[in-house]
Amino acid sequence: MKKVGVAILGLGVVGGGTYKILTEHEGYYRRTQDIDLVVESVLEPNRDRARALGVPEERIASNIAEVVCNPDVNIVVECIGGVTVAREYVLAALNVGKTVVTSNKELIAKYSHELERAAKRQNAGLYFEASCVGGVPIIRTLLDGLQGNRILTMTGIINGTTNFILTKMAQDGLSYEQALKEAQMLGYAEANPVADVEGFDAAYKLSILASLAFHTKVPYTKVFREGITELREEDIADGKRLGYTLKLLAIAKQEHGGIEVRVHPAFVKSTHPLASVGGSFNAVYLTGDCVGEIMLYGRGAGELPTGSAIVGDVIYAATHGESRYSTFKNNASAEKDTKFITDFKSAYYMRLTVDDEAGVLSRITSIFGRRNISMREVFQRKDEGTGKATLVIVTHETHELSVRSAVSKIEALPFASVESVLRVIA
Amino acid sequence: MKKVGVAILGLGVVGGGTYKILTEHEGYYRRTQDIDLVVESVLEPNRDRARALGVPEERIASNIAEVVCNPDVNIVVECIGGVTVAREYVLAALNVGKTVVTSNKELIAKYSHELERAAKRQNAGLYFEASCVGGVPIIRTLLDGLQGNRILTMTGIINGTTNFILTKMAQDGLSYEQALKEAQMLGYAEANPVADVEGFDAAYKLSILASLAFHTKVPYTKVFREGITELREEDIADGKRLGYTLKLLAIAKQEHGGIEVRVHPAFVKSTHPLASVGGSFNAVYLTGDCVGEIMLYGRGAGELPTGSAIVGDVIYAATHGESRYSTFKNNASAEKDTKFITDFKSAYYMRLTVDDEAGVLSRITSIFGRRNISMREVFQRKDEGTGKATLVIVTHETHELSVRSAVSKIEALPFASVESVLRVIA
Repeated sequence: MKKVGVAILGLGVVGGGTYKILTEHEGYYRRTQDIDLVVESVLEPNRDRARALGVPEERIASNIAEVVCNPDVNIVVECIGGVTVAREYVLAALNVGKTVVTSNKELIAKYSHELERAAKRQNAGLYFEASCVGGVPIIRTLLDGLQGNRILTMTGIINGTTNFILTKMAQDGLSYEQALKEAQMLGYAEANPVADVEGFDAAYKLSILASLAFHTKVPYTKVFREGITELREEDIADGKRLGYTLKLLAIAKQEHGGIEVRVHPAFVKSTHPLASVGGSFNAVYLTGDCVGEIMLYGRGAGELPTGSAIVGDVIYAATHGESRYSTFKNNASAEKDTKFITDFKSAYYMRLTVDDEAGVLSRITSIFGRRNISMREVFQRKDEGTGKATLVIVTHETHELSVRSAVSKIEALPFASVESVLRVIA
Repeated sequence: MKKVGVAILGLGVVGGGTYKILTEHEGYYRRTQDIDLVVESVLEPNRDRARALGVPEERIASNIAEVVCNPDVNIVVECIGGVTVAREYVLAALNVGKTVVTSNKELIAKYSHELERAAKRQNAGLYFEASCVGGVPIIRTLLDGLQGNRILTMTGIINGTTNFILTKMAQDGLSYEQALKEAQMLGYAEANPVADVEGFDAAYKLSILASLAFHTKVPYTKVFREGITELREEDIADGKRLGYTLKLLAIAKQEHGGIEVRVHPAFVKSTHPLASVGGSFNAVYLTGDCVGEIMLYGRGAGELPTGSAIVGDVIYAATHGESRYSTFKNNASAEKDTKFITDFKSAYYMRLTVDDEAGVLSRITSIFGRRNISMREVFQRKDEGTGKATLVIVTHETHELSVRSAVSKIEALPFASVESVLRVIA
């Protein structure tokens, strides 16, 4: 039986979960995978954390050199996070030919070229299933399941923190601030939640998934990004009345030789499979030119779900002979030739406050009309005692830039102000 | 660039779809997968069908020998169906060391031992992603994505024909016969629908998926099987009122060293992700000990979705060096030691016709009580002018055999008859 030595860098939530899975399943993997997977080494500055997990003293390394020079270590699992120490350690491992498995989306989104170059040079493997959508094997599915397809569109709920917050806002009528506080209390959001709530986390993941799906580097800097901090409970309630559920979506499309990548809140029809993805669950809804529509759904975070993805990569690396670098295969420099679409098309929801007077609606509709924006639904309600009214408009599909132009025109009117603009997925 | 020759046996719906995908994507696979995939040979008794697809005359083989002796053919795709000719041809290909990709669930469910032996002997590959759940890469997910998990439960809607019929019955209030007729007219059901509507097709697939998930041979003959032909629209309507949707489910569980496999109609809560899997869509809902709950959803049949799965296997076989025979790894004879649970547990829905008289309900509830069956919901409605009433009962989870015993006891009463018994997934 083949013996494979594993090292784990960082024993936080994900690293600790990975350690637990590997040690508790040793016999199971011997029996079902015909490999002897042994955690040979861990690197964790807080040695007490390692001891609490039951790591034998002699397997707690003191520095990265001890890990990468250990001939019994074949695969290095990086669970440190961030892009300084993690990058340095991952490069150190790849440079001596160790295969690396990581859950670090920021590292892969920002430095995959550099890491893949180092891996190829040493014929080492580089695996990062756990970087996207937790336990859901979306990367394996793109590389080894749907690889016969041209992927046309990908729409994902790929950040659990924001999905938890939006689910709370919708179900319990909480404000953004209240829902965030609850998410922080339950450990779903960090003390500094910016990476999640401003969409950076989702943008890193979308950059990775779109690069794999479209076989070209899609830099995270090309991802149009809007967070959820400005969302208002009124809009969620309005959407519900219209049959929509608000989600933070990550969207990637490829058409006419152009690629479109964006992360922003959007209304989806409440009957769409993505609408019922609640709480900290994640899902990715794909269209391929052969397979048609397909969805993968599961837990997007957590020690054991993310550990499941890491261990899946570890076993894959241990049981498959060769390494694969599919990310940018034959396309290391393709991004130069890729056209990124910024004036994307969408339907839109808008909430305006207007003076409750004759002629106001027609002035506003004419602004839309001149930009070829046609309306699917309009409703108006009096705001009692203020002389104002609320106007809610849902448009047919139109261009982002046309809507921005209409919005700034309306904002300039003395009798109307735009309270919210949200995209709607048809 | 590596050149890989493919042969297709049978150009029906799936074989034809596979041919179209391979020929239309040749350049795409060269660019993205770094392989030159060429259809070198097809075997199709109806040569006109091959010509209609545009197969060059010199690539239409006259017999299986021409295919398996062709040195340019590396991978043989079997899309004939059935287990006579298909089995013979697949063995012929494996015996000369050609890798085989098949969509034939019956063949794999019945003869996988024999086929895997032949494959191993010649170090040939044997792939069958397309045999289960059409375009959804469920087998790849079990083998290469969730392989770090012990799979605890698997609940699937894995037959598109019956799901189409049940969706029609639920949405349009059709009877089984009417819905079947519509499915046949639209090509979703065959003229002889037995394999689908009696659950054989789902049982073959469940046998394959459970074998992979539980790492032991689960013979299709061990699958408890009940079809949908006896289903009544009244029960679907009653279930809807109670918040349930009726589906033909394939269920596999592993606990306490025992395996439970069954295919039968069952009510699922209308809020469960499986409830909204409508029409000809399929889905598999899994629980793994690390990943937790996960669902894969997509098209379970059709020329291009199933072709997507075949081509996925072809590319996998062409780009991965070694062959893997994970089905029964280290466990070729494990089925001898496997305990199959037949007295499974479930909740139940029952519809009875009873005399509308005092004392009837208490007689019936005492029959349940003596078997430790406790009731979750009961409602009774008068059947006007008949002196009869309809009694609908939903039980808490209990044992299958207890329910069967209660049912035969009730059937023996002069004042009650059991109209329907359906399982309910909690």
